[in-house]
Amino acid sequence: MSVVRRLGVLTGGGDAPGLNAVIRAVVKSSLLTHRIKVTGILNGFAGLVENKHRELDRDSIAGLLIRGGTILGTTNRGNPFDFVYRRPDGREELIDASQTVVKNFEKLGLDALIVIGGDGSLAIAERLFREHRLPVVGVPKTIDNDISATDATFGFATALEVATEALDRLHSTAESHHRVMLLEVMGREAGWIALHAGICGGAHMVLIPEIPFNFEPLIAKIRARERLGRPFSLIVVAEGAAPAGGGQVFQSEDAVTGWKRLGGISHSIGKVLADREGCEVRVSVLGHIQRGGTPEPPDRMLATRYGVEAVRLVLEGKFGHTVALHGNEIVAVPLAEAVGHLKRVDPDSQLVRTAREVGIVFGDEDPEEVEAAEG
Amino acid sequence: MSVVRRLGVLTGGGDAPGLNAVIRAVVKSSLLTHRIKVTGILNGFAGLVENKHRELDRDSIAGLLIRGGTILGTTNRGNPFDFVYRRPDGREELIDASQTVVKNFEKLGLDALIVIGGDGSLAIAERLFREHRLPVVGVPKTIDNDISATDATFGFATALEVATEALDRLHSTAESHHRVMLLEVMGREAGWIALHAGICGGAHMVLIPEIPFNFEPLIAKIRARERLGRPFSLIVVAEGAAPAGGGQVFQSEDAVTGWKRLGGISHSIGKVLADREGCEVRVSVLGHIQRGGTPEPPDRMLATRYGVEAVRLVLEGKFGHTVALHGNEIVAVPLAEAVGHLKRVDPDSQLVRTAREVGIVFGDEDPEEVEAAEG
Amino acid sequence: MSVVRRLGVLTGGGDAPGLNAVIRAVVKSSLLTHRIKVTGILNGFAGLVENKHRELDRDSIAGLLIRGGTILGTTNRGNPFDFVYRRPDGREELIDASQTVVKNFEKLGLDALIVIGGDGSLAIAERLFREHRLPVVGVPKTIDNDISATDATFGFATALEVATEALDRLHSTAESHHRVMLLEVMGREAGWIALHAGICGGAHMVLIPEIPFNFEPLIAKIRARERLGRPFSLIVVAEGAAPAGGGQVFQSEDAVTGWKRLGGISHSIGKVLADREGCEVRVSVLGHIQRGGTPEPPDRMLATRYGVEAVRLVLEGKFGHTVALHGNEIVAVPLAEAVGHLKRVDPDSQLVRTAREVGIVFGDEDPEEVEAAEG
Amino acid sequence: MSVVRRLGVLTGGGDAPGLNAVIRAVVKSSLLTHRIKVTGILNGFAGLVENKHRELDRDSIAGLLIRGGTILGTTNRGNPFDFVYRRPDGREELIDASQTVVKNFEKLGLDALIVIGGDGSLAIAERLFREHRLPVVGVPKTIDNDISATDATFGFATALEVATEALDRLHSTAESHHRVMLLEVMGREAGWIALHAGICGGAHMVLIPEIPFNFEPLIAKIRARERLGRPFSLIVVAEGAAPAGGGQVFQSEDAVTGWKRLGGISHSIGKVLADREGCEVRVSVLGHIQRGGTPEPPDRMLATRYGVEAVRLVLEGKFGHTVALHGNEIVAVPLAEAVGHLKRVDPDSQLVRTAREVGIVFGDEDPEEVEAAEG
Repeated sequence: MSVVRRLGVLTGGGDAPGLNAVIRAVVKSSLLTHRIKVTGILNGFAGLVENKHRELDRDSIAGLLIRGGTILGTTNRGNPFDFVYRRPDGREELIDASQTVVKNFEKLGLDALIVIGGDGSLAIAERLFREHRLPVVGVPKTIDNDISATDATFGFATALEVATEALDRLHSTAESHHRVMLLEVMGREAGWIALHAGICGGAHMVLIPEIPFNFEPLIAKIRARERLGRPFSLIVVAEGAAPAGGGQVFQSEDAVTGWKRLGGISHSIGKVLADREGCEVRVSVLGHIQRGGTPEPPDRMLATRYGVEAVRLVLEGKFGHTVALHGNEIVAVPLAEAVGHLKRVDPDSQLVRTAREVGIVFGDEDPEEVEAAEG
Repeated sequence: MSVVRRLGVLTGGGDAPGLNAVIRAVVKSSLLTHRIKVTGILNGFAGLVENKHRELDRDSIAGLLIRGGTILGTTNRGNPFDFVYRRPDGREELIDASQTVVKNFEKLGLDALIVIGGDGSLAIAERLFREHRLPVVGVPKTIDNDISATDATFGFATALEVATEALDRLHSTAESHHRVMLLEVMGREAGWIALHAGICGGAHMVLIPEIPFNFEPLIAKIRARERLGRPFSLIVVAEGAAPAGGGQVFQSEDAVTGWKRLGGISHSIGKVLADREGCEVRVSVLGHIQRGGTPEPPDRMLATRYGVEAVRLVLEGKFGHTVALHGNEIVAVPLAEAVGHLKRVDPDSQLVRTAREVGIVFGDEDPEEVEAAEG
Repeated sequence: MSVVRRLGVLTGGGDAPGLNAVIRAVVKSSLLTHRIKVTGILNGFAGLVENKHRELDRDSIAGLLIRGGTILGTTNRGNPFDFVYRRPDGREELIDASQTVVKNFEKLGLDALIVIGGDGSLAIAERLFREHRLPVVGVPKTIDNDISATDATFGFATALEVATEALDRLHSTAESHHRVMLLEVMGREAGWIALHAGICGGAHMVLIPEIPFNFEPLIAKIRARERLGRPFSLIVVAEGAAPAGGGQVFQSEDAVTGWKRLGGISHSIGKVLADREGCEVRVSVLGHIQRGGTPEPPDRMLATRYGVEAVRLVLEGKFGHTVALHGNEIVAVPLAEAVGHLKRVDPDSQLVRTAREVGIVFGDEDPEEVEAAEG
Repeated sequence: MSVVRRLGVLTGGGDAPGLNAVIRAVVKSSLLTHRIKVTGILNGFAGLVENKHRELDRDSIAGLLIRGGTILGTTNRGNPFDFVYRRPDGREELIDASQTVVKNFEKLGLDALIVIGGDGSLAIAERLFREHRLPVVGVPKTIDNDISATDATFGFATALEVATEALDRLHSTAESHHRVMLLEVMGREAGWIALHAGICGGAHMVLIPEIPFNFEPLIAKIRARERLGRPFSLIVVAEGAAPAGGGQVFQSEDAVTGWKRLGGISHSIGKVLADREGCEVRVSVLGHIQRGGTPEPPDRMLATRYGVEAVRLVLEGKFGHTVALHGNEIVAVPLAEAVGHLKRVDPDSQLVRTAREVGIVFGDEDPEEVEAAEG
């Protein structure tokens, strides 16, 4: 194990509360405990291509624990193997800039690179390690909690807090004013935020990508509740939720608005419930509110632990690995195993069964059984 | 002044955090201090037509101070002068049920009626007082803060809290990820929530119904910020904001979705900024999240003061009046003066000037001056 | 496995956010999914001695998910094996009322009893199961997170949220006004809340029962920070923290106030830092603020899962067990194994090491190394 | 009116959420709108004596709207007329350094000075204006809301939020566990925080400096609630609350602990209720938690308006004035009128009467009437 004198750190991909807390932990443990200097790479991998960076000393991390976003910035042009190069004439072309990354890594005098990012950024890190022997260590990041290599990701607890607070607020209005309230949350491929928020916020229906839904059980639930003197319902909709059988009803709207991913599905569902069933429907779309701002304590904790352990992996020379939470411990997992495996909600899991047993309808039920359960 | 033995109280119109706190204060001061019994009328004025009600004793108000919504419920069929009557054959017709209201008022043994409601409900209360001499007292309610008879309405502080928290969360993501973030808030006729949230949440642009906007100053602001190394902007959009000159750009989308009032304007603005200007745009639509849930302390305070003073007006026989906040005191204002006067944002007010002086752009500026101000 | 027709449920011991959420989950899954009726036993085990109870139907659980406390109440006279009996003459005597518990259990027609409680209540449940074959299932409860049988307990996340928010608020004042701020949190035997809050709230020092502290490293930390231009420090103190060697300094104050457990230790430490070291010290004592109120989402989740799985254990006839979280699954653990084993902070654990690596001082360090680390 | 090219700004006294928001508004409106440069004076008036300062450009105010504390710092040695001078030999002496202030003011090239501070700092500003013709403008600051010249001060809304949240949390525990909960809040001379928090948090008793209390009505309230099946009570105690007649009971404890101002009064009251009356009492002391951290929206709004209008007063040459809120407008009030007049709670005000009518006991009532009111 060679001596480590200087670390690089970068953040890639979308926002997640806790990015700055990881940076802070990397810098604090490097400077205070291990006497390693830290270079912050700006704008994700693009900063390694274009050699943009800043020194991360103690003053630069003041207040970072509670600050959302990332002081290192990020960009969409970030894949060095497929880099969006802006030519002097203004046009863009795709080039392989990975050699430039290696060159700049050496020019900056780095002994290792910590990559904080989602599945995409970690895959780039893994390829840089595999093809160029770049000494990288990964820190997994996604508010969607859908990275299979780790039990939990930072940002998820904050997204859950925001979505649950929204449900708490919608609940009292729905109840007093006899409304069907839809709340659309993030989750294009995996329904973790919707499932957790639905349980924590006392929703009556939860629609997630892993369980294609039919309208009949939803309507059965709404009608059964009305008969019981509860003429209101809360529905949490993951943005990737989809009707069983292909969902013709949603096509035309999508085709026209061109805004396919924002509130498309919940507005479409709302339209059906309003037009066909005569419900008083209201829709809220949290959008990026759920992926920014001050991290909740569990995210600060996980981010801090990840940052400290990532530095430790560097010191132990465990390159090509990512930190991950297994049970109560932070462990090292090879990047090659960690990337490309999406963790989706298992419809047969204990958690989904728990949701069903407290009365949450997912849209795959027999409508008659839904009615019977409400009594 | 005759003896008051029993009061009725009802809630009308949309939700506002603090409704239950008014009910609690009415019941507490009636029972504890004045030995008056209280009947809760269910579902707004409809409950007086259909004789639906419940006794409000001390147990019935436990926990109400912090609970959103209204335990008395409300309905859209509430105007007794234009009542939506459901005939036995299922069809609906409009009837004048105001005599039924008077009859049920007497049958319930009420000596007075406290009506908690917005401009519409207070107008009904005023007409019942004028035409039928029903002894009513009003309590103004709207989260939009646009009732001219009072300095403030409960619910507004909570809506402002929710919108400001959303801006805080969006801010860090916008900054780190170089985004233009739009947040659509309520305000169809008046831009109070957008204006206050914009100032409190550090927005760069605020679009309100009272100031028709042009795109040029908005784009000038975005571009000037980019040149200064701040390639991100936060825009708060009131749902009633509209472009100067009629806004052809928005028509087609509205025509298709049919969901004109939910996110229509912010999505349309976002589309223009994304398609025409190449900005990375994200839109969040708070919807009913901002009008439900636990009231913030200022709303609990105002609601409690309104409730106590409404009972006092009843005891003083000041019927046909509404309570209102003037400066630090709760006063009585004749309903006839209070209804029908919308309080809108004055573009020449100190508050709007303050917003402009901290750099907020409203869309009516000279684009060149916007650029110059950013320096 | 015999048919289960009616369940009893009771809550014992101190408050923890999530108690009501467990009750709700028990009732929802019993009524909706398994057609079991539920009797709520009032005031802990005392209700089984004195036969005080209420039916828990669907209306009785409305709004419980977000409501702190327990609708079933609790009491200090709760151990039926050592029951505080109030004689007609007003005097109290201790009696063994466990036979009465069994008799009332049968009189109520219960087929099983779910006991939600801390180590003490679960020990009583275990003894009732062992000595009287009472069919009990346990649900572990403590905000201190110190039950060894389970990875996590509900209430802890909320306590952590409250303590972290307090640290966030204290931080800005400490920094601007050059103060040493002490925050005393709960934890008489175990320092989990202090340790987690210290990491999540960016504290500089954390004092916990498991690591007796000396003043020298604390003062070294304060002085080193001053020299670096940071003349402020945040110290989190668990109420059970104690100085190494016995701590004579604290005795006199305790002797006089008689309020030994409230802020005793943090005031005593503050006094030393103020009088001997001349620091500007301020002390805040969270007290019961950290164990009441609306549960945070992780506590709602855990409480709901516990409630559902407790009913499942009943259905499977796994009496004499408690639900517990192991990794991501809720499992059954024999009560006999679960009680009496306190889970304390291991000073050599990864978590404590992480805290040390981000610069947190526990008071057992070499003062010279503390100074050196700050640089 | 001469041209203003450069402003100085300083913060004095204790912390209040919103200080940084005022600084931000001063800098934003100066730089963006009026092309005035701004010098930040460090550590209150001490920075003018010792010539410590920093340039406040646009980068220096990033993120300030939501950040508690003051980036300019403050100190206790701040009165230039009575300046604590540290001699080279380490000893301190009091000197009149006001001429040094004037000299440094000129050396820095300032055309005006904005002083953000409480009654003490504004009194110094007034004297500098009166005796030295220093062109000062004041911005009033206190979380206690007790400056008579203005309807409201920033920081108060945040203190109220913190205290109300604490009461919400204590309420559920008190109710479930049959406790008397005391919450001590700030307010040595004036009971505004206690009064507002008591109303907003649903307290049953409120003890404030303006209304000396007797124990009899408090005990009557506790007993009457017990008889009604509500064996719990919430008591808000301002730190300056005092018993009628001099309060011998509190002396001994104060004499011993030497920590007179922290929790002294609430612990003493708690002791009486526990020892003499046998109540289960718990005490929480918010301390500085209520005066730090992110400002609530109303405080951000008021701070921003104050900052903008303070710059306007400078431009209009209205020196020797402070900004103040009158109704909905920010106005100018002569400093000579503004300082030295404490705004205390009027026991006969509408607000106190409102509190009494919803059942809040202040301790000056006839115990028999308290019992009768509860019914």
